[in-house]
Parts: sequence; structure tokens; C-alpha cells
Amino acid sequence: MKKINLYDENEFSDLHMSRFLVHDSPYFKILNFNFKDGQELPIHSHDVEGQLSIAVLEGEGEFLGKDDTTLPARPGDVLICDISEPHGVRAKGDLRVLVTIAPPI
Amino acid sequence: MKKINLYDENEFSDLHMSRFLVHDSPYFKILNFNFKDGQELPIHSHDVEGQLSIAVLEGEGEFLGKDDTTLPARPGDVLICDISEPHGVRAKGDLRVLVTIAPPI
Repeated sequence: MKKINLYDENEFSDLHMSRFLVHDSPYFKILNFNFKDGQELPIHSHDVEGQLSIAVLEGEGEFLGKDDTTLPARPGDVLICDISEPHGVRAKGDLRVLVTIAPPI
Repeated sequence: MKKINLYDENEFSDLHMSRFLVHDSPYFKILNFNFKDGQELPIHSHDVEGQLSIAVLEGEGEFLGKDDTTLPARPGDVLICDISEPHGVRAKGDLRVLVTIAPPI
């Protein structure tokens, strides 16, 4: 049993999205990304089995999908997609998300 | 790709912890639990392989562990433990958590 506080561990950076590895195990990988306004996790995908979730902890932005589609991202949102599906995130103002990937890649 | 907003989908109940199944797949199970003051997910464990995470979205409380140990739970906290380890949650005021179990049980 281990506990990490994301607010203590991960800051925001003016230069780029701030990435923090919360946990990695054979079962899942958990990451926290903090974005400042306009920063993004560019749309991408991996040709492997599995799914990921992106939970919005704080702030507003957009989820990015295939063919330039977007979905609004706001606190309490949980996005779920296959790892093989194109996905990304763009911030409008400070945005904190928690990403879980299972199985880990 | 699917998106769910926990604040839209799950309320609080005066009677008991309010459980909402966000997602279930061969890769992971995602649940949202809302607690009012004093409500709890009693300490328990399952004798299976895998791990779970409990992320605090909102509110304060305690994570419950073996031998009556407790750890404070506050926004931004992520607890990770084996599914086979005793774990639970108790609220002090309204508390929202997101639980991810991999592989799903």
C-alpha cells in the first residue's frame, strides 16, 4: 500500500506539459499530466491491446480524437479508449489529468 | 472512445455510499464511489492477483488498511495496493473517489 499526492509531487511548467509517473506495475501504469493553457498531449496511438482512462482532476480543456474531433474536458470527466485509438489532450487554462493504462505500455 | 462525467452521473445518498460503475472491460474496472460524512467502504480484500488505485477527486477522509491503520485521504491523493491487501475508505464530509481495478474482478 502506497500513497502519493499529485498536488505535492507534480507542478506545472511554462515550457511543456509536466509528466509524473505515479505507478508502474505488471497490472497498470498510472501517470499524472499537468498542462498550462494551450499545452497538449499530442494525438497519438499505439498498436497494442489494452485500454486507457483519462480522468480530469482540475481545469478545463479538450480530449482529442481521430480526424481532428474534440470533446470538452472538465472536472469529473473520465474518457476511456483503446490504446490503439487515436487520443490526446489539450488544455484551456491549467489542467490536471490522471491517466491509467492497462496493461501498461 | 467514450466519456462519462462523474458529477452528472453519480449523486450522494444519505443512506449509504453511492456506487457508480464507470467502465468494465477485460483490462480494468473503473468505479466511482461518493460518500457522505461517516459513510465507508469497509475494509476488505480479495485473494486474487492484481492491483487497484483509489484517487481522491474531492473531499476528505481516510484510507483504511490492515490492523486498523489509517492514512489521511485528501484531494490529489492516489492510493495503490494489491487487491489481496486489506483496503477501505471512510469519509469525513462529502468525499468522491475513483477506483481502478486491474485486472477487473
